[in-house]
Amino acid sequence: MNKVAVYRKEHFNAAHRLHSAALNDAENADVFGKCNYPNYHGHNYELIVKVTGEIDPKTGYVVDLKMLGNLIKSEIVERFDHKNLNLDVKEFKDLNPTAENIAVVIHDILRKKLDSKYDLKITLYETERNYVEFPC
Amino acid sequence: MNKVAVYRKEHFNAAHRLHSAALNDAENADVFGKCNYPNYHGHNYELIVKVTGEIDPKTGYVVDLKMLGNLIKSEIVERFDHKNLNLDVKEFKDLNPTAENIAVVIHDILRKKLDSKYDLKITLYETERNYVEFPC
Amino acid sequence: MNKVAVYRKEHFNAAHRLHSAALNDAENADVFGKCNYPNYHGHNYELIVKVTGEIDPKTGYVVDLKMLGNLIKSEIVERFDHKNLNLDVKEFKDLNPTAENIAVVIHDILRKKLDSKYDLKITLYETERNYVEFPC
Amino acid sequence: MNKVAVYRKEHFNAAHRLHSAALNDAENADVFGKCNYPNYHGHNYELIVKVTGEIDPKTGYVVDLKMLGNLIKSEIVERFDHKNLNLDVKEFKDLNPTAENIAVVIHDILRKKLDSKYDLKITLYETERNYVEFPC
Amino acid sequence: MNKVAVYRKEHFNAAHRLHSAALNDAENADVFGKCNYPNYHGHNYELIVKVTGEIDPKTGYVVDLKMLGNLIKSEIVERFDHKNLNLDVKEFKDLNPTAENIAVVIHDILRKKLDSKYDLKITLYETERNYVEFPC
Amino acid sequence: MNKVAVYRKEHFNAAHRLHSAALNDAENADVFGKCNYPNYHGHNYELIVKVTGEIDPKTGYVVDLKMLGNLIKSEIVERFDHKNLNLDVKEFKDLNPTAENIAVVIHDILRKKLDSKYDLKITLYETERNYVEFPC
Repeated sequence: MNKVAVYRKEHFNAAHRLHSAALNDAENADVFGKCNYPNYHGHNYELIVKVTGEIDPKTGYVVDLKMLGNLIKSEIVERFDHKNLNLDVKEFKDLNPTAENIAVVIHDILRKKLDSKYDLKITLYETERNYVEFPC
Repeated sequence: MNKVAVYRKEHFNAAHRLHSAALNDAENADVFGKCNYPNYHGHNYELIVKVTGEIDPKTGYVVDLKMLGNLIKSEIVERFDHKNLNLDVKEFKDLNPTAENIAVVIHDILRKKLDSKYDLKITLYETERNYVEFPC
Repeated sequence: MNKVAVYRKEHFNAAHRLHSAALNDAENADVFGKCNYPNYHGHNYELIVKVTGEIDPKTGYVVDLKMLGNLIKSEIVERFDHKNLNLDVKEFKDLNPTAENIAVVIHDILRKKLDSKYDLKITLYETERNYVEFPC
Repeated sequence: MNKVAVYRKEHFNAAHRLHSAALNDAENADVFGKCNYPNYHGHNYELIVKVTGEIDPKTGYVVDLKMLGNLIKSEIVERFDHKNLNLDVKEFKDLNPTAENIAVVIHDILRKKLDSKYDLKITLYETERNYVEFPC
Repeated sequence: MNKVAVYRKEHFNAAHRLHSAALNDAENADVFGKCNYPNYHGHNYELIVKVTGEIDPKTGYVVDLKMLGNLIKSEIVERFDHKNLNLDVKEFKDLNPTAENIAVVIHDILRKKLDSKYDLKITLYETERNYVEFPC
Repeated sequence: MNKVAVYRKEHFNAAHRLHSAALNDAENADVFGKCNYPNYHGHNYELIVKVTGEIDPKTGYVVDLKMLGNLIKSEIVERFDHKNLNLDVKEFKDLNPTAENIAVVIHDILRKKLDSKYDLKITLYETERNYVEFPC
């Protein structure tokens, strides 16, 4: 049977700072530039969750997007929104909160909550001009 | 030879109501919530048609996007725009007009009109935050 | 003291049909074209509420936008979203639900709920290309 | 002679926290909710600068938008982008960085740099759904 | 009676070059930079036409937006779209096609075609970040 | 190891005209319509560059998006922006500057500058409604 992908868009506003424990201070300043400023900056992150599967012939849904929206809100938005990713979100205690790493973290959280019959892909916009996708 | 994908975006405004004949009234109300309200609601649907093929070396086109736009208008927009999908579009007489099913219906209509040398993919936005893709 | 305007954007999805009791059927068909189709069509309405006033020096707010968002949700979205404006919303029982009239109705509902020290303006997008503003 | 308005859009990404020295901690938590979280959050601020004046008949310009863009970059973006508004921008040392106050601060900085023959208005988007305008 | 504004958005794609007959070549190069390059460049212009008037109680319309759209298409888009503004549009034979001047020209064309009971305002986007408004 | 895609969006404004040396004048007029007008028209081209690779565990980056942005600016924007593609860009001396061909040309330029460990994909918007992707 042919598969359909459904997408749900949510957002969260967070502070972060790019700083890697594997680099010294000069290297951090060199690699991350103003993203490394010590007092943090922030973004309106736009998050798109793609779920792929077969249409349920009884409902016409692949997955209920309201249910998916609620899952994203409870698992991601509640924990990331209006937070400092470096200080407040335990996954980034030892992990640099680049867009790439945030997308992988979000994927891994949602993957555990989603039935294995579905494929899952995360797109994360840090700004309108910079965004990432995982997996791909 | 390498392939290029071309995309054309069109839109239509329609009323619909989610209601499945395979579910009883209580189940319909439970599964579809306010999307099941009896007097219909509606959307500005954004439709993106992706056609993939080789560049014609004489023209530099994969396909003439104006021709593709006209095809979408005559086959889809003429029949769906300013209509009630449940009452006015025969494909949804016995099919629940979820975004997933609308995308499959649009795909099947256009697939018959498009040269088989092209690949075809449909993306349908029901709202800015909810959209679907078929096939994938 | 100088005044600041604050804006809050919300949305609702509704069905409607343009039909005026002051016109006969032929005139309605002529004036409203496909917007007059009997089985309704629909839109994703984008609603922008502008409130103008002085900054409260204690909070730095003109008005709490979360409070304003909740007011719009309880007074407008709850009553208009996923509804048929002609059949389900009493203000349009004898009033043609053009974008102009919807904007005036929304204004009049919110005006009664908002402290008279504030100015109020409504912008309503029926589509990306057609929108209205009241008062002006 | 008739006047024309020209608009230039720039952006900056910053961290902030809403906290008023005129309120105690419980009042701050009550008024500002999650915007008061101690470790900051952040936004992609979109800034629109409107300058109104007469067209120079020699150039056809009201003002050179590249010059205006450079002014915004040197006076605002350089000082606000990738910064913590509360900690790094001196204007908010004793002023709560609400969108309203940020817009007034930006206006006052640019007003001093712009020829008095021009009118100036600032629009600041904190998110897609919340934005402010000053003066108005 | 209170007034309502209605807006209609159309677009056209055109080539142009900024060059003023009142300036010599060195001044033109200095003032307009790469916008003065001799072989032209181009834009997707977004045009927003605002018409303000009273709601007709019989129809609920200020003005029929389809009629307004057709007027914009016949008077502006037909003449400007896929054209070279400097070479193909007679109004710019001796007038530098800056966004400011294009907006004034569009206003003057439409003003003659629109009933004097309406107010008219033109907004013209040259890019997402640069736009103008006339009158104001 | 799983791969992540990173995207960077840039833009350029250019004039062009569709005209193929493999077609005679009547055929060019017939195939390309108003896109074949002799005096050129133009677009705000939006360019999205997608680079896919593994996350560098030391930095958390697949590739530094600022470096990628600078590469796009030096290799593409410097050469295409505010230019006439037919007359000023040597790759289109004998190649019709359709969106498809522009995307292939951009891909081939960037492919030589990018480490072969990365996958590269180009998306080019000619207008909001017409865009292309290569390879796919």
